Amino acid sequence: MAKLIVLYKQPQDEAAFMRHYFDVHAPLAKRIPGLRSYEVSEGGVAAPGGASGVFLVAMLEFDSMAALQEGMGSSQGQAAVNDLPNFAGAGVDILMCDTRKL
Amino acid sequence: MAKLIVLYKQPQDEAAFMRHYFDVHAPLAKRIPGLRSYEVSEGGVAAPGGASGVFLVAMLEFDSMAALQEGMGSSQGQAAVNDLPNFAGAGVDILMCDTRKL
Repeated sequence: MAKLIVLYKQPQDEAAFMRHYFDVHAPLAKRIPGLRSYEVSEGGVAAPGGASGVFLVAMLEFDSMAALQEGMGSSQGQAAVNDLPNFAGAGVDILMCDTRKL
Repeated sequence: MAKLIVLYKQPQDEAAFMRHYFDVHAPLAKRIPGLRSYEVSEGGVAAPGGASGVFLVAMLEFDSMAALQEGMGSSQGQAAVNDLPNFAGAGVDILMCDTRKL
């Protein structure tokens, strides 16, 4: 499998972020071709020292890195990417990798 | 469910990191009570711009944040945490959150 891990930094306006994320962004992301599973953090993201600086984590699973890249390159993938500036102005780190179970 | 997401920064000596991670650290982590699933990145971690600065991602799943915290607070959890300085000197970010499927 492969994962797209999206780390959203702490926004200034949490309520506006959440509204846009769940009302607009998540429906766009769900349309990405090849998406097998879509998981988000709930209730905050902690770090061992306390605050993590990350407000929300999204983990999108695909069959492989090739499927992930194909999905993100599709018009639906690009619509989700193009929506990021509409709510993630505080910053976002995006990681992509093949994964295996240990 | 809940996830412990461990982001290891690029080490100076990749081969030494990998040896220690899979020979020593992963066996310690597998013993953490309450661990339901353990997934690692394979073949590098990319970012949309190219290099991500992250060398390896580990995702450990537990039933809940309470179970995660109990597991990490156990002697087995502490043994895994105490092993980090032995191979992750380049830095590591640790995130913990409850998760839900969308």
